[in-house]
Amino acid sequence: MKALVLEAVKKLRIQDYPINETVGPYDVKIAIKACGICGSDIHYYLEGAIGDFVVKEPMILGHEAAGIIVEKGEKVTGAALGDLVCMEPGIPAPFSPETLGGNYNLDPEVVFWATPPIHGCLRETVTHPARFCFKLPQGMTAAEGAMMEPLAIGIEAAKKGRITPGDTALVIGAGTIGTLAAVSASAGGCSRVFISDVKAEKLGIAGSYPNIIPINTGKTNLLDTIMQETGGRGVDLIIEASGSPKVYPDFFRCARRGGRVVLVGMMNGTVPLDVALLQGRGISIETIFRYTNAFDRAAALVSAGKIDIKRLISKTFAFDDAVAAYEYAAAGHPDVVKVMIELA
Amino acid sequence: MKALVLEAVKKLRIQDYPINETVGPYDVKIAIKACGICGSDIHYYLEGAIGDFVVKEPMILGHEAAGIIVEKGEKVTGAALGDLVCMEPGIPAPFSPETLGGNYNLDPEVVFWATPPIHGCLRETVTHPARFCFKLPQGMTAAEGAMMEPLAIGIEAAKKGRITPGDTALVIGAGTIGTLAAVSASAGGCSRVFISDVKAEKLGIAGSYPNIIPINTGKTNLLDTIMQETGGRGVDLIIEASGSPKVYPDFFRCARRGGRVVLVGMMNGTVPLDVALLQGRGISIETIFRYTNAFDRAAALVSAGKIDIKRLISKTFAFDDAVAAYEYAAAGHPDVVKVMIELA
Amino acid sequence: MKALVLEAVKKLRIQDYPINETVGPYDVKIAIKACGICGSDIHYYLEGAIGDFVVKEPMILGHEAAGIIVEKGEKVTGAALGDLVCMEPGIPAPFSPETLGGNYNLDPEVVFWATPPIHGCLRETVTHPARFCFKLPQGMTAAEGAMMEPLAIGIEAAKKGRITPGDTALVIGAGTIGTLAAVSASAGGCSRVFISDVKAEKLGIAGSYPNIIPINTGKTNLLDTIMQETGGRGVDLIIEASGSPKVYPDFFRCARRGGRVVLVGMMNGTVPLDVALLQGRGISIETIFRYTNAFDRAAALVSAGKIDIKRLISKTFAFDDAVAAYEYAAAGHPDVVKVMIELA
Amino acid sequence: MKALVLEAVKKLRIQDYPINETVGPYDVKIAIKACGICGSDIHYYLEGAIGDFVVKEPMILGHEAAGIIVEKGEKVTGAALGDLVCMEPGIPAPFSPETLGGNYNLDPEVVFWATPPIHGCLRETVTHPARFCFKLPQGMTAAEGAMMEPLAIGIEAAKKGRITPGDTALVIGAGTIGTLAAVSASAGGCSRVFISDVKAEKLGIAGSYPNIIPINTGKTNLLDTIMQETGGRGVDLIIEASGSPKVYPDFFRCARRGGRVVLVGMMNGTVPLDVALLQGRGISIETIFRYTNAFDRAAALVSAGKIDIKRLISKTFAFDDAVAAYEYAAAGHPDVVKVMIELA
Repeated sequence: MKALVLEAVKKLRIQDYPINETVGPYDVKIAIKACGICGSDIHYYLEGAIGDFVVKEPMILGHEAAGIIVEKGEKVTGAALGDLVCMEPGIPAPFSPETLGGNYNLDPEVVFWATPPIHGCLRETVTHPARFCFKLPQGMTAAEGAMMEPLAIGIEAAKKGRITPGDTALVIGAGTIGTLAAVSASAGGCSRVFISDVKAEKLGIAGSYPNIIPINTGKTNLLDTIMQETGGRGVDLIIEASGSPKVYPDFFRCARRGGRVVLVGMMNGTVPLDVALLQGRGISIETIFRYTNAFDRAAALVSAGKIDIKRLISKTFAFDDAVAAYEYAAAGHPDVVKVMIELA
Repeated sequence: MKALVLEAVKKLRIQDYPINETVGPYDVKIAIKACGICGSDIHYYLEGAIGDFVVKEPMILGHEAAGIIVEKGEKVTGAALGDLVCMEPGIPAPFSPETLGGNYNLDPEVVFWATPPIHGCLRETVTHPARFCFKLPQGMTAAEGAMMEPLAIGIEAAKKGRITPGDTALVIGAGTIGTLAAVSASAGGCSRVFISDVKAEKLGIAGSYPNIIPINTGKTNLLDTIMQETGGRGVDLIIEASGSPKVYPDFFRCARRGGRVVLVGMMNGTVPLDVALLQGRGISIETIFRYTNAFDRAAALVSAGKIDIKRLISKTFAFDDAVAAYEYAAAGHPDVVKVMIELA
Repeated sequence: MKALVLEAVKKLRIQDYPINETVGPYDVKIAIKACGICGSDIHYYLEGAIGDFVVKEPMILGHEAAGIIVEKGEKVTGAALGDLVCMEPGIPAPFSPETLGGNYNLDPEVVFWATPPIHGCLRETVTHPARFCFKLPQGMTAAEGAMMEPLAIGIEAAKKGRITPGDTALVIGAGTIGTLAAVSASAGGCSRVFISDVKAEKLGIAGSYPNIIPINTGKTNLLDTIMQETGGRGVDLIIEASGSPKVYPDFFRCARRGGRVVLVGMMNGTVPLDVALLQGRGISIETIFRYTNAFDRAAALVSAGKIDIKRLISKTFAFDDAVAAYEYAAAGHPDVVKVMIELA
Repeated sequence: MKALVLEAVKKLRIQDYPINETVGPYDVKIAIKACGICGSDIHYYLEGAIGDFVVKEPMILGHEAAGIIVEKGEKVTGAALGDLVCMEPGIPAPFSPETLGGNYNLDPEVVFWATPPIHGCLRETVTHPARFCFKLPQGMTAAEGAMMEPLAIGIEAAKKGRITPGDTALVIGAGTIGTLAAVSASAGGCSRVFISDVKAEKLGIAGSYPNIIPINTGKTNLLDTIMQETGGRGVDLIIEASGSPKVYPDFFRCARRGGRVVLVGMMNGTVPLDVALLQGRGISIETIFRYTNAFDRAAALVSAGKIDIKRLISKTFAFDDAVAAYEYAAAGHPDVVKVMIELA
């Protein structure tokens, strides 16, 4: 079938690629209709690797997708041919300690699309366990559905933030994940969400949402601004989504006493941590790795009008122009959030 | 000073009443500007008692209020003369086990306005600890500020519901508290909030909010409707706000496996509980009693535009017409949510 | 193979019974060495049914067992032939919402030993997923291992009780489950565990453990005793393990303000609940249904010497005497906790 | 009255010191009977300061104490003359946001004994709010009571560790606080507690407790040992109590996926944190600052026989020999845990 295959670093090509998948009794086959481009896709495209994950053989890219069910296994319930679904791209081992313990995302045996050597889903059809496919609510498009994967990370950050209604939050970094974390924190019960970055375009997009307040740290002091806005108290929740070592260890000072921090931004190496600062303020830290049980929540909040996801699809390409789409995404235009590929 | 005094059952009168209050070092004196009428006020007015709390001596009514700071103690910080504030009406003992344990609402020594023999605040001025006064955000009126007290109960219900972003909720009962719980659950992160009642007018008001879906249980079956709307799964959270014994024990069937229930509605006597039903579905129950740390959260969500509280102020009376206001509130008009008294 | 088969009500017989089990890639085959008799086994034996679960065809009994691995599937890791293991008897659907949500015990598709029409394990060998088999720590016997299943219920009750170190607890009912809940609560961090019953023999066994304090409610008033022992405060945690409707709704009065209650005891019908009592004291309720991730915790606490489980094995029978064992268990001797069957 | 006064760095003297304290209506006056020497006392003695806290005027030392109530205010309930009590040394502001929020330890207005410029309690009598005095259970001595203060830190670490019964824990550092955290974690429900250090004497003392397993990291590799002991899984909970920057960032590798870390050890400056490591393992971090509501829990666990505290009182001096006691404590003998001063 037609697929977008990464053959080697910077060698990306749509081609007819042989895929041999069986639809098992609990599986569905999905005709892909839309697939977004993720930062990790770009990493594999440009560098051929992310940390220990190295592309050694040709690999189909893409893991943020939605499509239509065209076939289903005999034991599948609650899903019908023709359903428009989004798909959770990582499948854990069924009875691993992590799965039984409620943290299936942490299972080291997880098989995840477009993570070498596993193929992604930027192709005509893909076969997937039905339980990891989520029917989109009435009115959502395939492109919006494909956004559920990155939004799920924002939802996971909000979940781990254990928001109490009316909390204030600060998101560090207004990139795609930071913006999705901010809209999730707002939808998840925060009264105000501050978001900080040095890029005016990114802040403009995030700040176009109600209750999300941009702070340009190239122009104003973050700590001063937060303390002024919160009556000297600090925010209840900080979500670090920049992945920039430079923000450590000072951003913790923006948290109120007893505040919570969720570390979302990924980076190599170590960052400096001021343990005494955390202790004196009674701060706790959570980390996230992908997500659990977040896709249906994401879709429900979009469907309810609590998250406008369409605004973040910056540009759409046809499947035949997928290589151009990757080049466009790789260019890193400051006003681009998500590049989407649509399949006929 | 001028005050609304309940002299005996159904004997309510505005009169000049001697109050001798000292502004202590940590206190402020507030000129009352607005005060709502609560169901408990009506109970004392019509019956002279609520359970063990019996009005034996003349008592000033009112505990849902906002006003302007006109005097402050020498050690008060973070409050200024002229601030428009709402007030939390119950003051716990400082170092009781409940206060130190984070449950100051449960302290048996709490002193609460308009709970015999403690006077309420429907009078010209009241003296109160500054820490239990909350400056209203820019743009809020005194009448909106007075709504923070009943809204705090809705916020408390949402807090105890431990909402995960995107949860679905069902509120049983569309009275004032039920409606406030529903808007709080929605603002607190739920994607959809169902609310059930038999009164069409009440459902009409609650259902005028986005994402709040009325279910008229006089016309449709609650369990069937919930199961249909949730794909047979049930809601994540139920808030029981009707205080009607008749809804027990069946409403628990509307919860999903592992769901949570918050009991807000108060009643006398006992209700039937089906323990095996709770166990088989893994349901947990929380109860609320008043609130903790909820007033600033309530005001922040109103100020953020996440809760439209103005809509629930059905009718406003001047202070001189306070007795008429009480009679109007006692009449129980089906389309009335909150009756407000404003002071010049 | 030889098995203990319930053919009809009160018709129980050891017989050669044909079992056709395949050891799948993730399964192990276990030679059963010990199997306890549970109250549910006795119910099926004497009445042929528990609620909706009716024995319509011959069924092998037994679900509290330990044995030795004698065969293993090709993909099994972390288990070796010859390992002495105990087995968790219920297997959920791999990717059900409940399993992925961390509540696999609530999955309605769970397949559970000796729950009609599923055969139990009181037979020579049984095939089981390796992930639901737990190697016993050095020094534990098969009979002790078979006790991990009922102990897992006690552990689950303690888990759901969210014990803070030094908490006080009250267990209602000194039957097998109540006693196991009491030893679990003690091992789980409680400083003192009160246990109440009217049966002196049961209280004698439970009270033989350190820090477990029996209260004979046939002789003394429970509430008075608890209040006296806790300085008028009440206990932090109550575990209801009697399944007796008579204890409702009054036992809640023994909880401190903000206390927690775990409902373990099962019963038919409804019990009276005093909602206002719960609200005024800020009490929360959890329920348990079987257990999750509890077997290795149970074994670890036994191995650590924190729970003496041997003391609760009252009498042991050989497999050939299994019918006599059931009759002995069914007689309900007041000083008997667990009847064990050992296989050669 | 007679008091141990620090006049300047290394100038410590028992002297008659004028103290003018009024017993307020909610206060008690306590005749001090025993007072331990804390690391912070030694810091002030040898260096005159801890961070920003500088001894500028003569200050009485000591904050780990127990004594007998000799006078009480008119509104004190639940305390009697002659009661042997231990005292929590830090008093928050009554209605601060932190106190009302359940984190009174984080209140910046806390007044804490022997933290400049506040006098400590190593003197004949001290006046204190009755609510921060805790009657010792029958059978506990004053010296044991004085140990409740350092033990409260161990209890707080165990509380923040959110132990599930049967958890495994690793405590880094076998100093006084590490050892107290280890015994608290064991009493709080852990099945096994590993404790690591390079000092054999310290490990010998900690390892003398049941279920506490010493690991000498001067001789064996910590990660290898932990993985071997936990079947390659890692521990559920890590309590960092060494305050040594050298253990960062590697000790996090000893946690299981989804594990929890509590940072107790204090230090200046920053330590390296490997964010990707935390994320990939889904680790969360809590910090502690002193304690909340821990003294009665500590005493209950000692009284229950779950924590043997007497073993950690290494040497006792009379009040007149208090300076010698400080010199002995300052010498840092490897086999000394706590030096105690007793008053007649």
